[in-house]
Amino acid sequence: MFGSRVLSRALRFCSSVPCPRHKPSSKLSVRDALGSQNTSGERVKVQGWIRSIRSQKEVLFLHVNDGSSLESLQIVADASFDSRELTFGSSVEVQGQLVKSLSKKQNVELKAEKIEVIGNCDAKAFPIKYKERHPLEFLRQYPHLRCRTNVLGSILRVRSEATAAIHSFFKDRGFVHIHTPVITSNDCEGAGELFQVEPSGKTKIPKENFFNVPAFLTVSGQLHLEVMSGAFTQVFTFGPTFRAENSQSRRHLAEFYMVEAEISFVENLHDLMQVMEDLFKATTMSVLSNCPEDVELCHKFIAPGHKDRLEHMLKNNFLIISYTEAIEILRKASHSFTFTPKWGVDLQTEHEKYLVKHCGDIPVFVTNYPLALKPFYMRDNEDGPQHTVAAVDLLVPVVGELFGGSLREERYHILEQRLARSGLTEAYQWYLDLRRFGSVPHGGFGMGFERYLQCILGVDNIKDVIPFPRFTHSCLL
Amino acid sequence: MFGSRVLSRALRFCSSVPCPRHKPSSKLSVRDALGSQNTSGERVKVQGWIRSIRSQKEVLFLHVNDGSSLESLQIVADASFDSRELTFGSSVEVQGQLVKSLSKKQNVELKAEKIEVIGNCDAKAFPIKYKERHPLEFLRQYPHLRCRTNVLGSILRVRSEATAAIHSFFKDRGFVHIHTPVITSNDCEGAGELFQVEPSGKTKIPKENFFNVPAFLTVSGQLHLEVMSGAFTQVFTFGPTFRAENSQSRRHLAEFYMVEAEISFVENLHDLMQVMEDLFKATTMSVLSNCPEDVELCHKFIAPGHKDRLEHMLKNNFLIISYTEAIEILRKASHSFTFTPKWGVDLQTEHEKYLVKHCGDIPVFVTNYPLALKPFYMRDNEDGPQHTVAAVDLLVPVVGELFGGSLREERYHILEQRLARSGLTEAYQWYLDLRRFGSVPHGGFGMGFERYLQCILGVDNIKDVIPFPRFTHSCLL
Repeated sequence: MFGSRVLSRALRFCSSVPCPRHKPSSKLSVRDALGSQNTSGERVKVQGWIRSIRSQKEVLFLHVNDGSSLESLQIVADASFDSRELTFGSSVEVQGQLVKSLSKKQNVELKAEKIEVIGNCDAKAFPIKYKERHPLEFLRQYPHLRCRTNVLGSILRVRSEATAAIHSFFKDRGFVHIHTPVITSNDCEGAGELFQVEPSGKTKIPKENFFNVPAFLTVSGQLHLEVMSGAFTQVFTFGPTFRAENSQSRRHLAEFYMVEAEISFVENLHDLMQVMEDLFKATTMSVLSNCPEDVELCHKFIAPGHKDRLEHMLKNNFLIISYTEAIEILRKASHSFTFTPKWGVDLQTEHEKYLVKHCGDIPVFVTNYPLALKPFYMRDNEDGPQHTVAAVDLLVPVVGELFGGSLREERYHILEQRLARSGLTEAYQWYLDLRRFGSVPHGGFGMGFERYLQCILGVDNIKDVIPFPRFTHSCLL
Repeated sequence: MFGSRVLSRALRFCSSVPCPRHKPSSKLSVRDALGSQNTSGERVKVQGWIRSIRSQKEVLFLHVNDGSSLESLQIVADASFDSRELTFGSSVEVQGQLVKSLSKKQNVELKAEKIEVIGNCDAKAFPIKYKERHPLEFLRQYPHLRCRTNVLGSILRVRSEATAAIHSFFKDRGFVHIHTPVITSNDCEGAGELFQVEPSGKTKIPKENFFNVPAFLTVSGQLHLEVMSGAFTQVFTFGPTFRAENSQSRRHLAEFYMVEAEISFVENLHDLMQVMEDLFKATTMSVLSNCPEDVELCHKFIAPGHKDRLEHMLKNNFLIISYTEAIEILRKASHSFTFTPKWGVDLQTEHEKYLVKHCGDIPVFVTNYPLALKPFYMRDNEDGPQHTVAAVDLLVPVVGELFGGSLREERYHILEQRLARSGLTEAYQWYLDLRRFGSVPHGGFGMGFERYLQCILGVDNIKDVIPFPRFTHSCLL
């Protein structure tokens, strides 16, 4: 820790080498500097953090990164610029001339005319160490600092690119974006794993009276999207969802992001599956073309061999099997499962993994699940004796279930009967209303966004693909 | 309510007029049909809900809307197509030929060859009545149906367009999108109006043990964005934020959306204000160019005269006054205020409104607020005797405060002293860390997204610009 004098000195620190007088430098991001075509001595200013420093007898090399790209900008300076304050992690402003680099490692470098240290870095206390490749588990202890490493920087840039690509995908196809509510009085899945919301003790409002009804954090925006799909034929949402699951698994979080879409006038699962496959492929292609180095870093250091697996997923048409076929495949397998596969029982993670392997690591849609396993809103296939609903899950390498979707029960009388059987008729009167007033066949799906990132990057633990992971016994910051 | 027979009949209903055999029609959205250049009898299929129906002796006119645009598509059919099931609100699929319309009201209309009712609408029970313009307060009672009206349809399409425009604005400028957490153990503003989160009684986890610490719904993503601004020089977030405020005001919600940005290496408020003004204007221009009819509907029926006010905001440079100047203006005003304006006391809504009027209805930035009024993280201006911080609010017509921002205190020793004074040093050690390791001058802002929509559309009540409003005593659906 340094006191006031040290920092104010740092803020005012300027190399003693006299700066030549010239017109003000234009400010460039590292990314723009690296991509600059004008390397005939254009005078620029770059700001960022020192990622490496190498001092030779007459020359000083710095690498400065500002998060705009994985690659840092090489700064070449006269050795006289060297100073004890130029350390790994400190922030600097560098002015100088952009020139063509003589090294093959980069096209462009910055010949420094002025280097100013903006903020020092206490290297001893800084948990991120120069030239060390810290394991992801180690970095998880420092949610406020881990974004300053190459690997988290890359993952978060990919996350940002994928977010933009998903918004574009839907916008380009005419979907209306809907902010479904986070606080809700519904319990979409009928599951018990809910977080309840109440004003904290410090507020002046009686807890039980704030909303007049018990209020929870949403587990899915589906029912609210269905409301909207009675006015707009294509809607989507992309926001946080919550599960109070007591799980430390590598694919579960208490707070995670879901991309959900709902489409009216859809009458079969194939149309839905086409949108899911298109979404997966279009988003991934966009990420690959906008931040190839970031994806490459993950494939190189986190998941060797994953590059080929991803290409394999992208170039093949996704497969489709029914739940009944899936059970057949599992029963015929020579593999011995902990849970014996059986019609009418949910697929376990081990089953999902086997099915994906069986399909040659190509993502596979599993359709038409037993009615008894699925919630009230899924469309009854009215088949038998093995009674199913028009549900579909997409299983992929690395994470297993990535998408879940279904046609929704749009027929008033069937929905009414199923609600009545569960004693939910009164609570879901509004949902029944949607079937009274111009009901249409419709369906939709949800994709777990963190699992998507795990799947394309090959990141094993979900906690490493979200900026601030929340799970049992952990809510850092 | 209708039973199984009625709906299944409706689903199978097909006009008895024989359909001519022809190649399968291509499916078009109403928007694409209306914009079609090919009106020489192209055969198409359109699906949507009946918005109006007019039966003449030999011709039947329907207007069908699918939410892709405010305008409906006119269907012209032989009177023999008429049926009791063709009612306002019912869903239909129409096949026929796109032709040039003879009427001046539309360019294109659909000459029906086949009309199929997909789902009936029980007109008596349907709270939305044909040809009635329901007040917004009335519609608020039906959050599951109000999106089917013209006005809510337009507002929600504008919301969707504005969302996309905001993402594009930041992406185009190289900002990295960050999902800041919804559940947090921090209390950014130090305010008491927090919602607390706990597993609901049904789960098997002891309430107090889920996260090991008390957990709240976020009131701002700022501190988490500041973490990220130590790695990426430009970051933004756009997500839900929460206040457990016991307020029924027209500009407050318990759950609302905020656009927040944080920029590193920013040393003065002017650079921040420029980004805010650009964000407001670029987003608004994008909305105006992508859904002009929707904006026009609001300006025409909800807020007459607002079109001119908005144009006035867009064509003028936003104004800048200091808090001290603002107090001077208010003290000199002939207007009598409920709360006497006084240096060191917060501006009230009545003061904000007066200031905006005083500035000729041009948005005005108010800068440099008293230190004592603002939270610990705002940068000390080290002035006196009237001690201020580098804070800025943007006041606009209709809603008053739209943006709030500041430079952040990046100087370790000053921040440490202010945290110590509030007894927060231990809780914010991680925040101090950001100033120990390569600290940089930085600043950011937040914009209330619903207030933004109110401001551009002239919508008086915030509950009408969000799909599912949450406020005291109300959490419908």
